[in-house]
Amino acid sequence: MGTPERIREVARRIAARREEVDGLAVVVSAMGGETDRLIGLAREVNPNLPSREYDVLLSSGEQVSAALLAMSLEEMGVKARSFLSFQLPVFTDGKHSAALIKDFGAERLREAFARGEVAVVAGFQGINQEGDITTLGRGGSDTTAVAMAAALQADMCEIYTDVEGVYTCDPGICAEARKLQQISYDEMMELAVLGAKVLHTRCVEMAKRFGVNLLVRSSFNNEEGTMVCKEGDEVEGALIAGVTYTRGEAKISVLRVPDTPGVVYRIFAPLAEMGINVDMIIQNISRDNYTDVTFTVPEEDLDAAVKAVETLARQIGADGVLYERDIAKVSIVGDGMKTHPGVASRMFGALAEEGINIIMISTSEIKISCVIDARYTELAVRVLHDAFELGAAEQS
Amino acid sequence: MGTPERIREVARRIAARREEVDGLAVVVSAMGGETDRLIGLAREVNPNLPSREYDVLLSSGEQVSAALLAMSLEEMGVKARSFLSFQLPVFTDGKHSAALIKDFGAERLREAFARGEVAVVAGFQGINQEGDITTLGRGGSDTTAVAMAAALQADMCEIYTDVEGVYTCDPGICAEARKLQQISYDEMMELAVLGAKVLHTRCVEMAKRFGVNLLVRSSFNNEEGTMVCKEGDEVEGALIAGVTYTRGEAKISVLRVPDTPGVVYRIFAPLAEMGINVDMIIQNISRDNYTDVTFTVPEEDLDAAVKAVETLARQIGADGVLYERDIAKVSIVGDGMKTHPGVASRMFGALAEEGINIIMISTSEIKISCVIDARYTELAVRVLHDAFELGAAEQS
Repeated sequence: MGTPERIREVARRIAARREEVDGLAVVVSAMGGETDRLIGLAREVNPNLPSREYDVLLSSGEQVSAALLAMSLEEMGVKARSFLSFQLPVFTDGKHSAALIKDFGAERLREAFARGEVAVVAGFQGINQEGDITTLGRGGSDTTAVAMAAALQADMCEIYTDVEGVYTCDPGICAEARKLQQISYDEMMELAVLGAKVLHTRCVEMAKRFGVNLLVRSSFNNEEGTMVCKEGDEVEGALIAGVTYTRGEAKISVLRVPDTPGVVYRIFAPLAEMGINVDMIIQNISRDNYTDVTFTVPEEDLDAAVKAVETLARQIGADGVLYERDIAKVSIVGDGMKTHPGVASRMFGALAEEGINIIMISTSEIKISCVIDARYTELAVRVLHDAFELGAAEQS
Repeated sequence: MGTPERIREVARRIAARREEVDGLAVVVSAMGGETDRLIGLAREVNPNLPSREYDVLLSSGEQVSAALLAMSLEEMGVKARSFLSFQLPVFTDGKHSAALIKDFGAERLREAFARGEVAVVAGFQGINQEGDITTLGRGGSDTTAVAMAAALQADMCEIYTDVEGVYTCDPGICAEARKLQQISYDEMMELAVLGAKVLHTRCVEMAKRFGVNLLVRSSFNNEEGTMVCKEGDEVEGALIAGVTYTRGEAKISVLRVPDTPGVVYRIFAPLAEMGINVDMIIQNISRDNYTDVTFTVPEEDLDAAVKAVETLARQIGADGVLYERDIAKVSIVGDGMKTHPGVASRMFGALAEEGINIIMISTSEIKISCVIDARYTELAVRVLHDAFELGAAEQS
């Protein structure tokens, strides 16, 4: 909701939806640009952004949206009422800027439904046991929506985004990308972790925990969207749901690490203390009581990480440290992997056929990720999309 | 607090004050322009400005100020904590956009003081018994400050304004205007009603009720300001506290109204229904069972008022309706009037000496107002200021 005009459009859409549905509750996020404006003001008065007051400040953005949307609905003759966290209440644990919802009060929403009102709930925020405002961090408003749907035992939670749904891969680099009708919670979570930006992991996790059906759809049109729900038991479920990729990582190798108990902990503890997020970790089998340890970190943390690891390498008697920028991770995700062997070899084969070297591999029950040279990212995605027959042509 | 730079200035000032005072609580209003921006957004989505949501919207302005000021104080090493209405709580009656404070919770403020924190309270707002946000209307943040001072039984409530204090008259039209060291609640209330913009009547009224000492001072410098407190019992108290004026009123006369019971009610009831604020009302003594009724209304309501009154005049058999724009009201206010006779005649004499015709007169225990031709406004103010020896020269 970037502008008053957009707010009116959203209100019109809700008004139409209200015709079909009894008991409609809407979660809003801040108007486009508003959060950045507030952060800008905060930085000017205190660059440290003290977390308690930062949350008080930021939560005003959703408050403004909620009031304006409720007003806009009223203007269209739809009874509506805004709710802030303290009014429901939405209780969180105490952590500012990254709070977890502990309890979502739905009683006042049900009262609003009984009066025929649309409930407009300010997303992204809660209050802790002391009554302080806490914000939920990234994906906050989506998480509010899922928590609300769970508390209301709602039939469905629709998430309005800037895309039409979840795709088999990024349509920006693969013309054959196809919108999925349905995807399981686990698949969606893996996709979210692996770079699909449509939903935050957290919100999918919560939807899974409470069995909330999530419909991801566009806020700009009425296309059908993608349903995120529990894994279907159809025999003919797709093998692979999608192909995804991330860039902006870098790889560090520590060579000939003496393979003694606790040595890996000694490498990663300082990185954790520095707040550096280590993603893939590969430890090759030990040879003569030495092993190579390779891992990836966000590219912007590479210099700091290398410095720390080089010091460590000397202390533990490793041979040295190598690093590489410009790597990418391509992944395939699908519940079907659990029951269909041979998926990995099909992936490796497809990449090999194009001469794409695989630098690292990591797998889970429903995903396989390969680190490759970043310059082959788009090619790899398209090749894998073809190899697993995810394209629109194959499905029609 | 118009900009981040202004917020930092205010914070610096509070930090300095903190050195002198234990238990400091600050009430903030919205940043300059912020309220207008929010109203603009609201008008775009719903020109009717539904009152419940309007209050949710507007109250975000003070929320932002409170968070930013607390952040700015923290940055200067002063422990601070913001409080919103629901957190204290500040309870109001149910009236949106013009709520009255019923109960001001001070316990959390005292806890903050005990921790050595400055409490930063979002002004202008409260919550009603249903937990809905209610705003206080005009003068709201000042009223919040007085209610808080009363709840805390504070030694003093300082009101920071864009002027240095309360003056004997408008320095803009009278070079001799002198800043008062002290003024009584009653005098301040009369001055506020009669056009002095420095404080809202409401906030003075509440200060009087709870015996809160109000210090009006500038937010831009450290000058001493004016103390509004209960009437002193010095024998040598000033006769007159100040001279004030209002413009933008108009006068309506209904001629030869049959003087029967209820006839005045019939004239004013429709104006009240139309929401037109009638100020002075003069009814001359009845002659042959007919009387003339004259009253003033805001100039912008004149046309509507005349139309309504003309219809009425025909119905009740009055002779006709006259009206006049371009009138002004000059007033003198002072507790000393209560004990000193001859003040009125001194006022009338001073105006007569300059050939200024008095159109209407109204008096209370501590004020005398005269309606005059608007073109003599400044002259009348200066003449009265001289006549009652209010100037700086006489006092030094």
